[in-house]
Amino acid sequence: MDIAVITIGDELLIGQVVNRNAAWIAEQCTALGARVVAHSVVGDDAHDLQQEITRLGARCAMLLLTGGLGPTHDDITAQVLCSMANDHMVVHPDWLAHLRAWMQQRGRELTERNAAQAEVPSTATVLWNPIGTAPGLMMSIAGTTVIAMPGVPQEMKAIMTDQVLPRLQERIALEEGPLRSYHVLQTTGIAESNLADLIGDPTAFLGSATLAFLPNLQGVRLRIGVEGRSVEERAREAERIIAVLEERVGRFIFGTGEISLSQAVGQRLNERNETLAVAESCTGGLLGAAITDVAGSSSWFPGGVISYDNRIKIGHLGVEPAALERVGAVSEEVARQMAEGIRQRMNTTWGIGITGVAGPGGGSPDKPVGTVWIAVSGPKGTRAMRHQFGSERRTNRERSVGAALGMLWGELR
Amino acid sequence: MDIAVITIGDELLIGQVVNRNAAWIAEQCTALGARVVAHSVVGDDAHDLQQEITRLGARCAMLLLTGGLGPTHDDITAQVLCSMANDHMVVHPDWLAHLRAWMQQRGRELTERNAAQAEVPSTATVLWNPIGTAPGLMMSIAGTTVIAMPGVPQEMKAIMTDQVLPRLQERIALEEGPLRSYHVLQTTGIAESNLADLIGDPTAFLGSATLAFLPNLQGVRLRIGVEGRSVEERAREAERIIAVLEERVGRFIFGTGEISLSQAVGQRLNERNETLAVAESCTGGLLGAAITDVAGSSSWFPGGVISYDNRIKIGHLGVEPAALERVGAVSEEVARQMAEGIRQRMNTTWGIGITGVAGPGGGSPDKPVGTVWIAVSGPKGTRAMRHQFGSERRTNRERSVGAALGMLWGELR
Repeated sequence: MDIAVITIGDELLIGQVVNRNAAWIAEQCTALGARVVAHSVVGDDAHDLQQEITRLGARCAMLLLTGGLGPTHDDITAQVLCSMANDHMVVHPDWLAHLRAWMQQRGRELTERNAAQAEVPSTATVLWNPIGTAPGLMMSIAGTTVIAMPGVPQEMKAIMTDQVLPRLQERIALEEGPLRSYHVLQTTGIAESNLADLIGDPTAFLGSATLAFLPNLQGVRLRIGVEGRSVEERAREAERIIAVLEERVGRFIFGTGEISLSQAVGQRLNERNETLAVAESCTGGLLGAAITDVAGSSSWFPGGVISYDNRIKIGHLGVEPAALERVGAVSEEVARQMAEGIRQRMNTTWGIGITGVAGPGGGSPDKPVGTVWIAVSGPKGTRAMRHQFGSERRTNRERSVGAALGMLWGELR
Repeated sequence: MDIAVITIGDELLIGQVVNRNAAWIAEQCTALGARVVAHSVVGDDAHDLQQEITRLGARCAMLLLTGGLGPTHDDITAQVLCSMANDHMVVHPDWLAHLRAWMQQRGRELTERNAAQAEVPSTATVLWNPIGTAPGLMMSIAGTTVIAMPGVPQEMKAIMTDQVLPRLQERIALEEGPLRSYHVLQTTGIAESNLADLIGDPTAFLGSATLAFLPNLQGVRLRIGVEGRSVEERAREAERIIAVLEERVGRFIFGTGEISLSQAVGQRLNERNETLAVAESCTGGLLGAAITDVAGSSSWFPGGVISYDNRIKIGHLGVEPAALERVGAVSEEVARQMAEGIRQRMNTTWGIGITGVAGPGGGSPDKPVGTVWIAVSGPKGTRAMRHQFGSERRTNRERSVGAALGMLWGELR
């Protein structure tokens, strides 16, 4: 069951709006076992839209469109579908009645512009929109099922959930042949290329499955795609491959699926009934923000100190002025004292200290931009590590957060 | 100058990753006056990629590709470009030397897999990547300029900013005909609909220009689009419209272009030679992170305390236990005491205190999820405001940060 997603609108084309609709639609369809083969964005242009429907329709059993169904002059989708199907527009009496009631409920008149939204191609199936004034449309064009939905995310999601996904599931159930599903293993503390070396030649064990390496700032995700005719068959195949990966790189895997490193750390701390406090210099609160992004983090995270200035390191963390003078703020000694100081002052099991040169300024020959010291202090003492990240401030800060959480996760393993 | 954006990767196709790269690229190109005519997402599939380059290349002067340049088996972009140009791969000595130095600096060996990233098509121009191990590539394929960049957003953005956009600007300058360019005014502290009411009917002053309202978490951006044959003509037209907007809603405008509210606040503090410290509960470090996102913020931001737990509010900020007991942590009184406490303890001109219910748990009938108290303490006393945001944890935290910075900006105006 091959599917393509076409999103329509100048606001997407010029980058004013991020195309979250396409990702959401693709995720839902993939979860049911459909294969999404392309996403395409076109502007509010009838000719371009027609071309894309023709091109992708030749390849797919189903096209999912969003956008261009509103009441203004730049909404062209219904007209394009109508003309491609050599159809004509008719008034849909149920939708017109619904619109009238909808307006009445809001104390508004049904304007001509609104009433026009009840005009649909005569061969279209109307897909009820429980939220907005434009219904979804389903038509057959040259043998392909074309489904058009509004671009407003809530309306699109309601129509997808109530009307489209159940139909898709039925059609997939009727299909023959294997389906594909995906599994993710999350790793931290190892570079993409080293991970690939440890795993070795994947073709030796993959069979018909696929393996992708997806690096981000907290580590590298391993995405496994497996094929099988049934849920059970796919689960067995996934298990087989996960077992190989666990054996080869298991010590770097912190979780499966869309778990974040903060969540993984939080789960461990909760299980162990332990707590964490942070002392942040170059990250300036970003580590605390990542930790408290997890709902319920209050049970293991009382707080921290953002010690951007050396006076705060001294006064609020107990860092020794002599150490700052002797080796500077970006140093192993200060990172250790920050971690130990916050652990003691907030009375937690663990303390993290981060101090570094985020950039673009502040670098020196022996401490260039991207130099970051991270210390983790716990019941068995304090460990510190020097990192050399790159030249970009934002990346350096985010990688510091990933490295700090990864380091603590290593201690809790 | 027609451009298409092609993003490559199964993770995009299946909806696991939202295509933010395409939006960012399109926004940058549009700002320079280029016309983005299509976005396309293809999987890690050589045949599909080749087809898209052929199809969109026939229509565009330039194609911008991201993804598929990494060191693993599913990275196919360089090979596809090479074969489409009937070219062969060669080792790029400068990039190989750079990779060797890069690894050495990090105390790592240059593996064979990493070294392979210095292999590029012989006719490609290498676009320096200041952050990662894969360089960008620029080639001519059937008369179209094809530029391939890594999919990691920071790497793509660095290559775009340093290498691609300047080249694009040069080529556009050689073109004829009226071009469109965009200007942004950033507002805070006023809702979109109130802003629209104050501005009045825009058709009365816009002429051929356009005006869009783009709300985000720190306020509402006003995007002005103007047409003209020369840079000067467009600048004059933009100035005329900006003058009208300044007159009507100037007191809510904190900056022009892509300035952030943290930057605007930082500029004001710097000019006034003043400083700020923060005490964060529900935002957990997010406000500090937004402030220190600005390079040079150390001159006006010594630090703060993340007081997620009430014991930290008491011990590290001087909040009265009696107040916590009487009115609870999410209250005007506690927000005020947090702002005043951090201002005094870090000896700054200004102090901000944030305490709220981010959700999803922790709500009650009189303090539902989304209730946030923000206090700003300064030389003339302390002001506090209650906000009622929505049900989504992440959004509530980000809106709290925007509201806190907006409130301080109002004081500094």
